[in-house]
Amino acid sequence: MTRILAHYIIETAGDPAYAAELMAGEQSAGTFVKVPGETPELLAAHGARVEGLTLLEQVESPSLPGAKPPKTAGGKYQRARVTLSFPFANIGASLTTLFSTVAGNLFELNPFSGLKLLDVEIPPEIASAYPLPAFGIDGTRRLSGVLDRPLFGTIIKPSVGLTPDQTAELVATLCAAGLDFVKDDELQTDSPHSPLEARVKAVMRVVNEHAERTGKKVMVAFNITGDLDAMRRGHDLVLAQGGTCVMVNMLAVGLVGVIELRRHSQLPVHGHRAGWGMFSRHPLLGIEYPAYQKFMRVAGVDHLHVNGLGNKFCETDASVIAATRECLTPMPGVGAVVLPVFSSGQTARQIPDTYRAINSLDWLYLAGGGIMAHPQGAAAGVRALHQSWEAAKAGTPLVEYARTHIELAGALERFGS
Amino acid sequence: MTRILAHYIIETAGDPAYAAELMAGEQSAGTFVKVPGETPELLAAHGARVEGLTLLEQVESPSLPGAKPPKTAGGKYQRARVTLSFPFANIGASLTTLFSTVAGNLFELNPFSGLKLLDVEIPPEIASAYPLPAFGIDGTRRLSGVLDRPLFGTIIKPSVGLTPDQTAELVATLCAAGLDFVKDDELQTDSPHSPLEARVKAVMRVVNEHAERTGKKVMVAFNITGDLDAMRRGHDLVLAQGGTCVMVNMLAVGLVGVIELRRHSQLPVHGHRAGWGMFSRHPLLGIEYPAYQKFMRVAGVDHLHVNGLGNKFCETDASVIAATRECLTPMPGVGAVVLPVFSSGQTARQIPDTYRAINSLDWLYLAGGGIMAHPQGAAAGVRALHQSWEAAKAGTPLVEYARTHIELAGALERFGS
Repeated sequence: MTRILAHYIIETAGDPAYAAELMAGEQSAGTFVKVPGETPELLAAHGARVEGLTLLEQVESPSLPGAKPPKTAGGKYQRARVTLSFPFANIGASLTTLFSTVAGNLFELNPFSGLKLLDVEIPPEIASAYPLPAFGIDGTRRLSGVLDRPLFGTIIKPSVGLTPDQTAELVATLCAAGLDFVKDDELQTDSPHSPLEARVKAVMRVVNEHAERTGKKVMVAFNITGDLDAMRRGHDLVLAQGGTCVMVNMLAVGLVGVIELRRHSQLPVHGHRAGWGMFSRHPLLGIEYPAYQKFMRVAGVDHLHVNGLGNKFCETDASVIAATRECLTPMPGVGAVVLPVFSSGQTARQIPDTYRAINSLDWLYLAGGGIMAHPQGAAAGVRALHQSWEAAKAGTPLVEYARTHIELAGALERFGS
Repeated sequence: MTRILAHYIIETAGDPAYAAELMAGEQSAGTFVKVPGETPELLAAHGARVEGLTLLEQVESPSLPGAKPPKTAGGKYQRARVTLSFPFANIGASLTTLFSTVAGNLFELNPFSGLKLLDVEIPPEIASAYPLPAFGIDGTRRLSGVLDRPLFGTIIKPSVGLTPDQTAELVATLCAAGLDFVKDDELQTDSPHSPLEARVKAVMRVVNEHAERTGKKVMVAFNITGDLDAMRRGHDLVLAQGGTCVMVNMLAVGLVGVIELRRHSQLPVHGHRAGWGMFSRHPLLGIEYPAYQKFMRVAGVDHLHVNGLGNKFCETDASVIAATRECLTPMPGVGAVVLPVFSSGQTARQIPDTYRAINSLDWLYLAGGGIMAHPQGAAAGVRALHQSWEAAKAGTPLVEYARTHIELAGALERFGS
């Protein structure tokens, strides 16, 4: 019988082996008060098991308040990596039940002064019940016509406040500048000041005109985040207008929202992780991206945000790279590779490091200010990104390549090298 | 034009007023790199505004890693309460967009070594687009037949591992013991070892038999958490079998899952908050329950878990009481009062304190071990809860009341007084 593995980091003032058993019991058949019916046979068949326990460092102070203190004064808090396994028979082919099991009533248990879900191995028995990414990297390349290099894109800014016509005017400029991809801001959905229908129609008119003129259909990710009916209507509208992508704020709609959107969608789904900091910001609380993104891949998003190197947020470069590699690594027996999306303070500057770190052509690189604030204008901003990519591919230092490429030189001057 | 208020606690090494303006800008029309189109008119119409800023204590060390350090060595981190207002025009009548706005890309901003959403005031313009609780307290009383006192209930234990027939046998015992309410564990949904259909049919047979015999229909919250179609099928099954409640793990299915379940459901929806510790456990990261529960009330759950006094988790009693009062307080212009559910290590012992703290008859009190582990058996465990409630209502100390009530005496002896 299949068992599902989940990996955690914990911190406890007590015995880590006891704490790990407690996690296993609470999230399966056991409780630490014996109740009738809790037979040895039932526990053997349905109990979660501790499959691994590796002690890490000790610390003086608890990472989170509210936990049981050490039994002896001056006692330390022990950190450990724990692997639990759960019987498939407890869970079934359900992502939501799996989520409740591996990320449910664990975080509040008072033996723990820290507990974070690091990773989960979603087996084919569960994944096969879901649509998985319908487009992924290949489908996105086919629709965008970009076959042999990373995709370059941008975000509509200001985030909110532009009318549909002003948005379309900006998109016309961005198309002319040579971008592959444009997306709505995560804050801009279907609002009184920019109704989705008017925005989609106005933007797709200029995108379609540009495609007719040049043969290049810029992919626009319209943010259709909303109630289920609203998302379905939004998707149908984008499809009818010749659009090639829809975007969803994954944490706002939740697993059921993402799953149902994928089941309905005939377009790539661009997964935005607005609010992700809640889960990730504390090193000993919440969920790491390797775990979270697997849920979203099985649910079927095609693009996943991974922040970016040297970003404007708090995430380290190492964490960004780990998340990116995850997106590009097939899940065993499942696959579900998705296109990683770099975004947040990205400019021509970070492209060579990004390429070196992941050693793949398959990424979408979003620059906002990095394009619009280029001293020679938006078109030069896009050319600078391409030049940075050419330099990265050739292994030529940016500063050297910039000597013969004026737009890259402008970008390095403006955004630092 | 309506503006939506959200309240936060922040911690920053820099100027709190600057940090508050940054939050407002990032979550609306502004960015801290000027872009074309960011006109004064646009900012005035669509910018979020700082409506209040109250300085709190200073601390030596940052609550979260990754934030910008103080500019001067030995500088402190300042905490503050911040109130922002967002134009309704940015958001529209959408809970998911509101969530992305008030709890989106804020938590990762690097000027902040702490940021938590404390509360949000959801206006009627948004709430009126949603079904709200269809049953709430009155509907639950009508269906359960308990009109003039708190409801007493329990959770099926062991959480997972019982077959449908074993579950039904346990429910028969619990019905005979005199309980008002029984719920599935949050881990038990529709699994290979306990398929929902078999479980609902087996359990409802004994519940219906008990109702025919005694006139009392015990309310059973079947955990139908799952994909949308699975939840709808589960609900229809419970309804067809004469059941009177369905349960959902809110964090696992997300906002869209809860909203769609409510739109479909002809029964009270019991909202379980498994995983809530992720959002709440750190005092300076995530979301406080007064904010989160408003989203779920507008989405339409009828019962909301609030933990319990003296619980087995990390939450303080003060936080539990604040959450309970929120559930019982109408949202201005909206209403949406819901039944608070106490659960986690609850026994006869905490009932008087619970009543004193909230001064209301409207609560559902779940005891697991507090019933099943009673030395005189489950029926005595239930009687002990009722006796504790009678003592609380009369203002009689438990120890005194126990002198003439043997089941209460047994409970106090077993669970402490």
